[in-house]
Amino acid sequence: MATLQVPACVPSPAEDSEQLKKAFEGWGTNEGLIISILAHRNADQRRLIQQTYAETYGEDLLKALDKELTSDFERALLLWTLHPSERDAVLANEATKRFTSSNWVLMEIACSRSSHELHLVKQAYHVKFKKSLEEDVAFHTSGDFRKLLVPLVSAFRYEGDEVNITVAKREAKILHEKVKDKHYNDEELIRIITTRSKAQLNATFNQYNNEFGNAITKDLKADKDDEFLKLLRATAKLLTFPEKYFEKLLRLCINKLGTDEGALTRVITTRAEVDLHRIKEEYQRRNSVTLGHAIQKDTRGDYEKLLLELIGHADA
Amino acid sequence: MATLQVPACVPSPAEDSEQLKKAFEGWGTNEGLIISILAHRNADQRRLIQQTYAETYGEDLLKALDKELTSDFERALLLWTLHPSERDAVLANEATKRFTSSNWVLMEIACSRSSHELHLVKQAYHVKFKKSLEEDVAFHTSGDFRKLLVPLVSAFRYEGDEVNITVAKREAKILHEKVKDKHYNDEELIRIITTRSKAQLNATFNQYNNEFGNAITKDLKADKDDEFLKLLRATAKLLTFPEKYFEKLLRLCINKLGTDEGALTRVITTRAEVDLHRIKEEYQRRNSVTLGHAIQKDTRGDYEKLLLELIGHADA
Repeated sequence: MATLQVPACVPSPAEDSEQLKKAFEGWGTNEGLIISILAHRNADQRRLIQQTYAETYGEDLLKALDKELTSDFERALLLWTLHPSERDAVLANEATKRFTSSNWVLMEIACSRSSHELHLVKQAYHVKFKKSLEEDVAFHTSGDFRKLLVPLVSAFRYEGDEVNITVAKREAKILHEKVKDKHYNDEELIRIITTRSKAQLNATFNQYNNEFGNAITKDLKADKDDEFLKLLRATAKLLTFPEKYFEKLLRLCINKLGTDEGALTRVITTRAEVDLHRIKEEYQRRNSVTLGHAIQKDTRGDYEKLLLELIGHADA
Repeated sequence: MATLQVPACVPSPAEDSEQLKKAFEGWGTNEGLIISILAHRNADQRRLIQQTYAETYGEDLLKALDKELTSDFERALLLWTLHPSERDAVLANEATKRFTSSNWVLMEIACSRSSHELHLVKQAYHVKFKKSLEEDVAFHTSGDFRKLLVPLVSAFRYEGDEVNITVAKREAKILHEKVKDKHYNDEELIRIITTRSKAQLNATFNQYNNEFGNAITKDLKADKDDEFLKLLRATAKLLTFPEKYFEKLLRLCINKLGTDEGALTRVITTRAEVDLHRIKEEYQRRNSVTLGHAIQKDTRGDYEKLLLELIGHADA
């Protein structure tokens, strides 16, 4: 369930554009007005506002925002305003360029979007970067990370609920052997994780747990300093328990000495229209504090205000 | 350019369905009538006929054809009648099951369809087989073949004409090193072949030729008994000269002792609506005989008649 709140009666894209234009004019920008509009429109509505704004004022709304705003607030609002597939294309492109954490962002986009959504990301990537997502990922990664990430971002997984128990049993056994022998980069292990449907993987992981007495994510904890193993474990978790994956990510980036605004912004802007409600529940259960309070404690100003509106904190 | 000939004035799907129903009735099937209709309708028209036939007679047209027809003619007509994306899904699924030649069929579908068409094949595969194409390919292949085929069928290549010459020079050098050292299954070589756009690969292969004095397809001829090398070479050829690839395939399957109807049927039914005209030109140039005459010499009966209609042999 999404946390985005759209008013029952939404102004026309022309009215919204006019208000945004006003917010940019005069002495100082009216950030509150900008948030009150954009943080309460869904993806299609935001796209219409962008189109109308460009037609009316001959200027790209994103460029106008870029000119008026700064730092974390700017990045969060720009990312949020983008259409989800374009936003993911931008995040993925950055991730093929940056030095740290990038593998996680790629894995996250590949594993938490539906097959259709991931395909839209790949189309948006073509349009925006004149290249394919896969070629950039393949070019910028190497070794075990490439072995895992290229098929992950290339996948077009089956999305039906059908499960083949014979396959689940056989592949649970394969996974257990490879994990037991610490062959985490094994070809068969990677094949299973990167190609099977989420429903099928869930069945396979359940078989693993039943047959061998531990959750596979637990067995994948063997070496805390192995970055590849951490990524593999996160992949297994995200594919079967997305809300737990995102809860943990939020917990780590908020509790960090100096909040990790990059990850915080990414999770809130990419999940607010999808499943942030479930993630919030999970967060409160695990941390005994609401996500809203945690964000209030760790952020400030317009950035704080935007995040709180996106997570529907008025409710909390 | 396609060879399919559609009449200027096409009967309605209802009329076509009625004629087909007539062709099935009475003593003996009227194969000529069936060919005269289905071999002269494009993919969308054939789809409409299938829909109308099912609505009117409560029976699947493909099943009716299956009941009335036999052997090579049946297979060719069934494949032809299918919508291209469904046809490719069927061919690919067979290819993950059969013992021989299957790798070539998978490579052919992955490399000769546009990115959008390949995506439609993957969607059709989900619907028809309740699995993904990639998971079946990954499951049924192994070793070097898996290393090449899984990324090939997973790719969503960029289709623009833009070419980066710096990248082309750098990657031509990588390819040359790997080919020289006979590291045909090298990760970097596979990355380049499976992820770069066709335009970019073409530029890279040109650089290779300019810089090192041989076409890469020539250098990939080193060992005639190496099945993986043959497939890799065919991949490089198909990605940059599809009409030459298909000409050679036709030449080999027609000249074989006992024509290879499987490949002949596949090439004609999958290319008649796409580029068979160019392939025919290439065939005549290379063999000094028209494709039509070669087919007349090697096939017979309704099968021959259908193929000749599909290749537009009336023109020849």
